[in-house]
Amino acid sequence: MFKSKFESYVNLIEKTINEKFPESNSEYALVNQASRYSLLLGGKRIRPILMLEFAKLFGAADSDVLPFCVAIEMIHTYSLIHDDLPCMDNDDLRRGKPACHKKFGEDIALLAGDNLLTESFKIAADSSACAERKIKAISILAERAGFNGMIGGQVLDLWFEECTPNAEQITRMYMMKTGALLSASAEIGVVLGGGSEEDLQNATNYALNLGLAFQIIDDILDITGDEKLLGKPIGSDADNNKTTLVSILGLENAKALAQELTQKALECLSKFEGNTEFLIELTSSLLNRNY
Amino acid sequence: MFKSKFESYVNLIEKTINEKFPESNSEYALVNQASRYSLLLGGKRIRPILMLEFAKLFGAADSDVLPFCVAIEMIHTYSLIHDDLPCMDNDDLRRGKPACHKKFGEDIALLAGDNLLTESFKIAADSSACAERKIKAISILAERAGFNGMIGGQVLDLWFEECTPNAEQITRMYMMKTGALLSASAEIGVVLGGGSEEDLQNATNYALNLGLAFQIIDDILDITGDEKLLGKPIGSDADNNKTTLVSILGLENAKALAQELTQKALECLSKFEGNTEFLIELTSSLLNRNY
Repeated sequence: MFKSKFESYVNLIEKTINEKFPESNSEYALVNQASRYSLLLGGKRIRPILMLEFAKLFGAADSDVLPFCVAIEMIHTYSLIHDDLPCMDNDDLRRGKPACHKKFGEDIALLAGDNLLTESFKIAADSSACAERKIKAISILAERAGFNGMIGGQVLDLWFEECTPNAEQITRMYMMKTGALLSASAEIGVVLGGGSEEDLQNATNYALNLGLAFQIIDDILDITGDEKLLGKPIGSDADNNKTTLVSILGLENAKALAQELTQKALECLSKFEGNTEFLIELTSSLLNRNY
Repeated sequence: MFKSKFESYVNLIEKTINEKFPESNSEYALVNQASRYSLLLGGKRIRPILMLEFAKLFGAADSDVLPFCVAIEMIHTYSLIHDDLPCMDNDDLRRGKPACHKKFGEDIALLAGDNLLTESFKIAADSSACAERKIKAISILAERAGFNGMIGGQVLDLWFEECTPNAEQITRMYMMKTGALLSASAEIGVVLGGGSEEDLQNATNYALNLGLAFQIIDDILDITGDEKLLGKPIGSDADNNKTTLVSILGLENAKALAQELTQKALECLSKFEGNTEFLIELTSSLLNRNY
């Protein structure tokens, strides 16, 4: 039941990506091809699924929300494309396939990232939701993706390659780099559904706990995971002498922390009045994932 | 009179940049410093000045418009930072100073561009204008900066390095690469002031003619200009075997075309009912500039 609903969500989102961000046959279509290549490379689609489920808690129409689902996935994808560039992480592979710059060249990959980021705001602005809600959602989207969110987290991540961060610093970096966009997803769902400020705060708390647990699991899977299921080599953190919460706390303590954070996220969910069954299963499944 | 009004506009815009996009003292402030470094490196501030003047034609409050003025200048600046990167034009200098990546490194320059683009939408969304007008203005901003605007123009520019474009293709590239953001500036002024669809179309026509003339003058100055006034070496187009409208049409024909396009832009201005005196002088001054 959970799995089939999850899969139908993934299909809905990929169908909507094709509708809202279709192929182009213009003279300058190359950047559109590169953008769509990375956007359709797969991925769990966690952010748009979270957004849809939070919006449903407050009875929002899918047509109001789906453009924002596409927008947040575009922003997530742009960040991966830019992150893979030689001047950043210099990763040749993404989800087991050539990274955007390996397939299209660095110049087009740079512009594809810029394109996804820019067009995400166009698609969001053109959603059928009312203007007040859209403006609030766009403000959240930009804030969470920006300086005090994902981009600030990237800067911390770069900086931490050159120093030895403590657990508090790593936690802050995870909250910004991964937590911020997850948080935006839940928050935008609440805003587009017309939830209260209290609901919004609760959604933020849920997503930040989930995001931190999510990132710790990523670090654990980099040690204990199966390369085939993950679609990427394991051991890269250790190879790069990267400080993670796992390297600071040890594997067992990190597992316990991920469990505790997931519990906190579930407690946040219990405060909503609507049907949170799917969100509860989603939250637990992310803790217990092996990919 | 024109000159002093122009200078007071520049001061107002730089003051507003400092208010809306201030210094940060966070742990991850480096990307903010890099963003502000490039944003405050000078420049003519043509785009925000156009926006303010068009908004004034329709009686918009400065406080509604100024956040969008900062936003468009941030988008213009992000495009310059990314354009200067080694994988693009590989320019070490910008306005006679070290380019962002020469001063802060490629990774931070990449993120500074992403930061300016993302935060521009946050600042725009938080303007005091009404939600309906803001949403329309944000949709225009993203469209003109995106695939069918500035980014598409960049892709054409890259492509034209490898083929021999004709005059029509170069014109389309100029319209997108330079014209689109000038067009957004005038259009957003009209939208925030509550102008009609006819006013909006007229503003677009004005700005596209102006943008094309502006770019042709740039090409002419690359041949006949004074390096000291321009703050950059001349002759770079010829050195790079770059096809421009000047190289296709010849210097005199290109000058005549810039004159003709400026005349067309002035005709568009004559259709507005408000006081267009400053816009007329601005338009003429851009034709006759030597920097």
